[in-house]
Order: sequence, then C-alpha cells, then structure tokens
Amino acid sequence: MNYYARPVARLIDEMGKLPGIGPKTAQRLAFYLLNAPADTALGLARAIKEARASIRYCTVCGNYTDEDPCFICRDERRGRDVLCVVEHPRDVVAMEKTRSFGGLYHVLHGAISPMDGIGPEQLNIRGLLKRLEGRDVCEVILATNPNVEGDATALYLAGLLKPLVPRVTRIAHGLPVGADLEYADEVTLGKSLEGRQEMK
Amino acid sequence: MNYYARPVARLIDEMGKLPGIGPKTAQRLAFYLLNAPADTALGLARAIKEARASIRYCTVCGNYTDEDPCFICRDERRGRDVLCVVEHPRDVVAMEKTRSFGGLYHVLHGAISPMDGIGPEQLNIRGLLKRLEGRDVCEVILATNPNVEGDATALYLAGLLKPLVPRVTRIAHGLPVGADLEYADEVTLGKSLEGRQEMK
Repeated sequence: MNYYARPVARLIDEMGKLPGIGPKTAQRLAFYLLNAPADTALGLARAIKEARASIRYCTVCGNYTDEDPCFICRDERRGRDVLCVVEHPRDVVAMEKTRSFGGLYHVLHGAISPMDGIGPEQLNIRGLLKRLEGRDVCEVILATNPNVEGDATALYLAGLLKPLVPRVTRIAHGLPVGADLEYADEVTLGKSLEGRQEMK
Repeated sequence: MNYYARPVARLIDEMGKLPGIGPKTAQRLAFYLLNAPADTALGLARAIKEARASIRYCTVCGNYTDEDPCFICRDERRGRDVLCVVEHPRDVVAMEKTRSFGGLYHVLHGAISPMDGIGPEQLNIRGLLKRLEGRDVCEVILATNPNVEGDATALYLAGLLKPLVPRVTRIAHGLPVGADLEYADEVTLGKSLEGRQEMK
C-alpha cells in the first residue's frame, strides 16, 4: 500500500538507509525536512555533497581531510616522535577529545577480520611502515579497539613494528571510570587486575 | 578545539539540526555518509533536494503531494461524503495505516495554540469550509491529537461545523489496545469509562 507521494517515499527510503534509523524515525526525519526552513533541508543536502566531493584520505596518516596533509599532520606544535595507530577516523576524534595525546596518528581503516575477508593487506599498514622508515619515531601506541579484531590487529602490528621502533605499546584494558566492580564482566575485571599499576 | 576537517564539521553540524539527533549520533551518521557507497550518500542529498523542489500542499486537502490534487483526493474508490480532519500530513499516514478509513482527509497544518501564537486564522480552516460548501458531506471526523491543543481545535471546529454538516464526530479517547488498567493514568481511564459502549 502506498501512503506517500513518490518524492516523500524516496526521501523516507534514503533516510532509512542510515545506520540506527528505523522506518519510524526515517518518516519523522523526512517530514521534518519537508516542513523545515529551506536552509536547513537544502543545507544538509549541500553539506553531504560538499563533504563527499572534497574529503579525501590524508596521504600521510589516512585520516579524513580536505587538504593534504591533514591539519593534524601539518600542526607544528605536535610531537613527531609518537604515533598513535587507530582503526577509524572517528577514533582520531575520540582520542583528540581526551586532550591527552600530542603526537600524530595513523588510521588503518579497519581491523584484521578473516570472517569479513579483511587481512593485513586490506589495511593501511604499508603506509605505516613507510612512515617509520628513516624517521625518529620512539613510540607507536596501538589504540585499536579492545575486541577480538582490534586485539588481533594490535598483536600482528606489534610483531611487525618491534624490530623497527624502540617502544610499541597498547592502550590499557580495565574498568571504565565510574564503573562498579559488582557489574563489571569477568574478562574486563581480569584485565584490570593484570594491568594493575603501582600507587604513587 | 577543532577535531574535524571543515566539510566534515559542517556535515556533522547540519546532521545535528535534525530532531532527535544529538552530537554523537550526528558524528556517527556523518562518518557513515563519508564512508558509504557514493550512491547512498548522494542519493540522500538528491532525495532531499528533489522532495523540497517537488512537494507542495494539495490544494484540496492540504496534504503533501507532488501532483495536484494528491493521490488520495484523486482516488475514485474513496468515499467523498466523509472527511477526516487531522493536524499534520504524518497523521494522514497514521490513519491510512489503520486501513479502517475510506473517506477523504483535510490537513489543518497545526492546532490552535495561543501559547505559540497559533489561532484559527493560522490553520487551514477556510479551505475546510470551502470544501463543505454545496457538497454532500454527511460526516466530519475530528481526528486532531488527544491533547489540550487538539481538543481545543476539535471543540472550535465542532461549533463551526455543526450547522453545516449532519454529523460531526471526535475519535474516541480510551485505553490503548494491550494496555493495563493498573498503569493507565486517571484521565485516560475516566475517558474510557465515559466513552463506554454497549457489548454486542
């Protein structure tokens, strides 16, 4: 049965392709866009087109950028001797928001996952090795996700990088801040015990 | 602090203007659109532009349409003697999904709400009166929302329409199907008692 005019149905359909947007939300957003000021609706359409047209991967670190190299790689105030390896551009944002890292990034664009047919060759690893050639990088921090794929990727990279870099580290597993021991899963709690640190 | 390339920041910003989309979801959707197949991302942009360009209000019922009159008003199989008055185009969709109404609609585009400066003049009421002139409409169903504004609008319209139409009705208030008496609010329960019907 057909409840909508064709362009409305198409808009709902396209909205529903976004992740986490079900049919109800897609309809709500579509009706909102029909009713919103033209600037809001067309501004979104323009922003999508513009972002798709201008955004590339940074040839140095692999992050999303509209200028090459990206603004992080170009930033003179950042240390060039520490590299933080992450899976996705969104992880760069997450790390930046901590304000605790002042080095450079390297984005792999995924993690090793044989189930999905993603091996080391599919990741931006060659670029990482090239970056380490003849550079004084003293530490590589492996900040892939703390799950099976991320751990496997970190393990693989550690083996690859240890002969090339003085220090290869992995971000800590443990209890999130504000958590409750009672409700923590055993694996996380076990990891937080394993990774315990001297009180200062 | 700036975490994104400019076009990415703009896309996140525009995404965040959508209702119910917070900054975290906006970022997630923006990164999805950057990474998705070009067809998905540009398809959405095109659908927004196309819908905004082609969708108008139906000059008969006020619903969204790309052809005038809309496909519901043009449908010869629908009864022309019963009108269902709703607040928004999305309410037409909700009514159609019940498959229990075979008449025509009239969309007010809002409800009387003095707090928001919306009086009867701001609503599509003149169009409704014009539709009733010289037509054999035997019933108008007032299907505005069961809240203060919708009830006020229904009351106002009832006064206006009763001299013109043989039957003016209001959709029933009561317990939703599957509800529990124990958890129903007093007002709803009171209304369901008031509106009780003979068992057949």
